[in-house]
Amino acid sequence: MKSWQARISIGFLAVALMTAPAAMAITAEEVEEAQATWGAGVVAIGAAYSDDGDYEAVAREHVETLYAFQMGDVLFKPTKAVEDQFRTTEEEAVSYFVGGNDDHPEDGGFALQPWTDVRFENEALYLTDDYAVAMGNYYFTPAEGGDPVKVEYTFGYMKDEEGNLRINLHHSSVPFPG
Amino acid sequence: MKSWQARISIGFLAVALMTAPAAMAITAEEVEEAQATWGAGVVAIGAAYSDDGDYEAVAREHVETLYAFQMGDVLFKPTKAVEDQFRTTEEEAVSYFVGGNDDHPEDGGFALQPWTDVRFENEALYLTDDYAVAMGNYYFTPAEGGDPVKVEYTFGYMKDEEGNLRINLHHSSVPFPG
Amino acid sequence: MKSWQARISIGFLAVALMTAPAAMAITAEEVEEAQATWGAGVVAIGAAYSDDGDYEAVAREHVETLYAFQMGDVLFKPTKAVEDQFRTTEEEAVSYFVGGNDDHPEDGGFALQPWTDVRFENEALYLTDDYAVAMGNYYFTPAEGGDPVKVEYTFGYMKDEEGNLRINLHHSSVPFPG
Amino acid sequence: MKSWQARISIGFLAVALMTAPAAMAITAEEVEEAQATWGAGVVAIGAAYSDDGDYEAVAREHVETLYAFQMGDVLFKPTKAVEDQFRTTEEEAVSYFVGGNDDHPEDGGFALQPWTDVRFENEALYLTDDYAVAMGNYYFTPAEGGDPVKVEYTFGYMKDEEGNLRINLHHSSVPFPG
Repeated sequence: MKSWQARISIGFLAVALMTAPAAMAITAEEVEEAQATWGAGVVAIGAAYSDDGDYEAVAREHVETLYAFQMGDVLFKPTKAVEDQFRTTEEEAVSYFVGGNDDHPEDGGFALQPWTDVRFENEALYLTDDYAVAMGNYYFTPAEGGDPVKVEYTFGYMKDEEGNLRINLHHSSVPFPG
Repeated sequence: MKSWQARISIGFLAVALMTAPAAMAITAEEVEEAQATWGAGVVAIGAAYSDDGDYEAVAREHVETLYAFQMGDVLFKPTKAVEDQFRTTEEEAVSYFVGGNDDHPEDGGFALQPWTDVRFENEALYLTDDYAVAMGNYYFTPAEGGDPVKVEYTFGYMKDEEGNLRINLHHSSVPFPG
Repeated sequence: MKSWQARISIGFLAVALMTAPAAMAITAEEVEEAQATWGAGVVAIGAAYSDDGDYEAVAREHVETLYAFQMGDVLFKPTKAVEDQFRTTEEEAVSYFVGGNDDHPEDGGFALQPWTDVRFENEALYLTDDYAVAMGNYYFTPAEGGDPVKVEYTFGYMKDEEGNLRINLHHSSVPFPG
Repeated sequence: MKSWQARISIGFLAVALMTAPAAMAITAEEVEEAQATWGAGVVAIGAAYSDDGDYEAVAREHVETLYAFQMGDVLFKPTKAVEDQFRTTEEEAVSYFVGGNDDHPEDGGFALQPWTDVRFENEALYLTDDYAVAMGNYYFTPAEGGDPVKVEYTFGYMKDEEGNLRINLHHSSVPFPG
């Protein structure tokens, strides 16, 4: 192949490189949608538990479809993990949500509270073509009544092959006491 | 300009796009170096304070050189911020480290403790060409003695034009009580 | 009444006042013994749980024999109670230690951790004939390993008819984060 | 001694036992009054600070008149003390309220927040002739706005020679995170 033809080929590649990511750009709306889905998932786990349903299956689907464990490492620090603060495997994440895991006796099952609503309040977003980060407070409404519980979060999202956002970063923490 | 010349130009651009990011790839070593620099900066602020030096200037340089406030939004949730949990401006970040800011009366000056050492223990990393995230615990050694204080963190780094890592994400939290 | 008769009366009064309370005086040793018994009780509940024993019965005896619910109001604020911070009935106290109470879904069972040791470190005591207060830190050693967990306490003790100390005040709290 | 003489003796003893303590009996109203005075004192320290007044003198009077340091040991665990959790001397207590004490660099001055209101909500009381204990939540309203901060307390009161309640026990803690 002649040199100028090679250059032309590369030229087309360049255009592809410049446009393809644009088509994948992550928007604030996508982040908000992913957050609403996550909140609904946590509520669904608790509802299955209250209704004597297969809440563990609901939790497993929650983790499998919303987190990025199948795409690589996930950086997950749940709110109430003490002994094992960081949950880098799918099993550890499921355990956090529903408990009953002998390897993690500390897990009472965060989602079994149960919660009837989760409301996100993003304070700041970082959006790129490949990655998005959201920081803010979320508020969990307990089924037994009382004020929603305020918790701080950072979520990091990447896109899977179907273009769905998946969480590969989740740092959740109780606010510093006043 | 003729069409094939245009294509050639784009071709050169493509090469630039394909090689430049590779040259910018963020490594674990770069992250660890950035963390060591951050820790040394916090210690330096406290040392300036103890020595009646211009600790506010040291803190300002710490924030200006290590965070990405000049490159866009920064997502910063310091450990001990209660009223204003999120610090998205440089002034708010400086206030957190040294206090004395009338707009943030809650800030006692985190770096004025002072601390004599900061040790990072990364639990997991997410490394890409453009962005890196590190999660783990850091341990702050108080000057007055006693055990190091354990704090959880997530740091997100981007590269500036000189190729230095800059923090555009910093979520710091006290561990959930046992 | 003649003067010598009055003196005799006063004499009896003096003897009565000086001896009766003296016989009931609460000592530091009694407080320490009561604390050791409480710690052993918490460990025993967890051991019964680990051994598939009747841990609820062990917990009930722990509460019935060491607290003063049958002598009047008990002021009890356990460490990890959030929704129902204060436990003023025996049922509420048992629930805190072993969970499984539909009225207190938040209770995971503090003593089921389980803990293998509880060590008291009194910081200050207030001792009178009728009442004693102890304040300090206690350290709970988790069965799954790791550092003992430090918790702050205030215990108030009164004596029952058999002369045993009973807890009518128990305020337990996690230390303020550093 | 003749039988009627013995009866007289016992009679005097009975009268003495029944009247003397009765005159010293501590009531719920006295406790509530002492709590209101304590809250007003904390607000007054902050107001003096805001008005560039001698807030340290106000804090010293607060501690001298409301606590029992001059009557014996005081068991005091303030909310935000980390390094020195327990404050058993008057100096340590004053330091907690207003800071500026080189021996306690951790003290930022709890009362300098400042707070504009303190509201007590007693959950349970233990009242005897000589001693009273109150347990509950108090709510501190920050001057800069925002929701009142909820804090848990146990207060123990004894009477001084003038019949005023004095705090010899004060355990204050942030609620366990939800």
